[in-house]
Amino acid sequence: MRRVKILGCGNALPTQTVTFDGQIRYRLGEGQTLLDLAETAILGALEDAGLTMKDIDCIVGAMATPLQAIPCNAALIHERMAKGTEIPAMDINTTCTSFVTALDTVSYLLDAGRYERVLIVSGDTGSAALNPNQKESYELFSDAAVAFVVGRGDGDSGVLYAAQKTWSEGAHDTEIRGGCGLMTAFKFTEENREDYYFDMKGIKVLKLAARKLPGFLSEALLQAGVTWDDVDVVVPHQASKALDMIMSRLGVAEEKYINRVSEYGNMISASIPYTLCEIIHEGKVKDGDLVVLMGTAAGLTSNVLLLKY
Amino acid sequence: MRRVKILGCGNALPTQTVTFDGQIRYRLGEGQTLLDLAETAILGALEDAGLTMKDIDCIVGAMATPLQAIPCNAALIHERMAKGTEIPAMDINTTCTSFVTALDTVSYLLDAGRYERVLIVSGDTGSAALNPNQKESYELFSDAAVAFVVGRGDGDSGVLYAAQKTWSEGAHDTEIRGGCGLMTAFKFTEENREDYYFDMKGIKVLKLAARKLPGFLSEALLQAGVTWDDVDVVVPHQASKALDMIMSRLGVAEEKYINRVSEYGNMISASIPYTLCEIIHEGKVKDGDLVVLMGTAAGLTSNVLLLKY
Repeated sequence: MRRVKILGCGNALPTQTVTFDGQIRYRLGEGQTLLDLAETAILGALEDAGLTMKDIDCIVGAMATPLQAIPCNAALIHERMAKGTEIPAMDINTTCTSFVTALDTVSYLLDAGRYERVLIVSGDTGSAALNPNQKESYELFSDAAVAFVVGRGDGDSGVLYAAQKTWSEGAHDTEIRGGCGLMTAFKFTEENREDYYFDMKGIKVLKLAARKLPGFLSEALLQAGVTWDDVDVVVPHQASKALDMIMSRLGVAEEKYINRVSEYGNMISASIPYTLCEIIHEGKVKDGDLVVLMGTAAGLTSNVLLLKY
Repeated sequence: MRRVKILGCGNALPTQTVTFDGQIRYRLGEGQTLLDLAETAILGALEDAGLTMKDIDCIVGAMATPLQAIPCNAALIHERMAKGTEIPAMDINTTCTSFVTALDTVSYLLDAGRYERVLIVSGDTGSAALNPNQKESYELFSDAAVAFVVGRGDGDSGVLYAAQKTWSEGAHDTEIRGGCGLMTAFKFTEENREDYYFDMKGIKVLKLAARKLPGFLSEALLQAGVTWDDVDVVVPHQASKALDMIMSRLGVAEEKYINRVSEYGNMISASIPYTLCEIIHEGKVKDGDLVVLMGTAAGLTSNVLLLKY
């Protein structure tokens, strides 16, 4: 087990809400940016941990989408929250599961003594690129930010097991084709507007995930030497309204996993950590509990991480 | 020392060259993309290592700029080179020093046994966003891609020491403001075209780097327990024509470092690994040599890594 302790976390939602068939979704208000949400989340996480920015020795941006093509998101977060310090800032990105990949990766650095306390910041503003003509995605996503402060801890808590797989036959099932290097903003016209929107082939993603996830997840439990009885709570990526269907297919009992899709929708990279932070603050996670973080991401990538809290 | 062995590397340049005052720069040819360069670099690295894609158990995209906002670069590289496999794909980004950060980070995962052989791919196509009105950057950058296969090795080689610092007072000295989340392609007009170009305040970057780097570098050597006499070769980021001036300020003897700015210019995230791969293939690096990788990146970030080859 790689020693990691969750020292604190904070969530942030934007001010605007919209509702589709009773499903609540959050959108940036006028003049708000993801950096505003990140600031609220980070201040919350630091307060929760009883720490200040001076106690942090690495800032990791674990987001799906870039704020600017250059510099990385973590540098812009650094400018907002840590200007004048020398804290290293880096991004780790596997799209929707970036937080899990970041926690997984950072666990090695914490365990080896490279850093003492790392700030991981997730969050995206899907609303910047949602296509009003693509109902299934337009009505699904929310903007949000989340921050976690993680430290090494004393060895009682940590990452028991983590794994990732990428099946790139799904690389274009969830994407934003335009805006960056392969199709720059200079090429934007009203005629190719759709290429600059978020584009999701929901059924294809679902089918690929349904085919790949059961084996991946059961292999993870086997490798970690645990059974479903040992697992206290599963925090899945809040990918879509099909979450119950996917969880049932994976054989996860209804009382074991958290489904808040109707309250928040899919918050992209913020989904897993937002849900985790919320249930921690609700007292649903106790010391020693075995928490499974899991989900799919554009790629198609899937991550699973077993955290002894 | 964290066990890492360089198993092979490959470089790739695009077909088009331009020359400014005798300085050669490379630009994508018609119809070429960064993925084409990445493919050439990866095939070269695999051949150099005597391996195939099946031997790789993680693909890391270590680039400054996104190819698409979603999915991450590594997933698109996976699609090109590893479709049908389950190799995990992730991005690690600190802009120009992304390769150093990736090697640094991956060294923990290799040393701990998470992976056996990791493919790190760097490269950018600055030409996609160069501003013809900003001579200092327009005449400086080249497009290129590089791939390294790194394995755990037997303990004779590895990362002796690595560190990163970020000074975000320089966050906007090197940037592309438009195209991504904070200023989307939808807002592009001919009037704000400059916001979508790469923008560099070269003198400001140079001044900040000149102020911060000497202390950072001497601290790194001290922490690693080595002196300049122990160092065989320094591979600096080929940031600009001021490289000799910066190296002199850092007290690095001229025969110790590699300066290929006139041959290639600044290849963004490819600069450090391209130069490293080139001198390896030229036979300038021998087993057991102490190689220092170092440089500055947008952020302003600086990385230094001491590699026992």
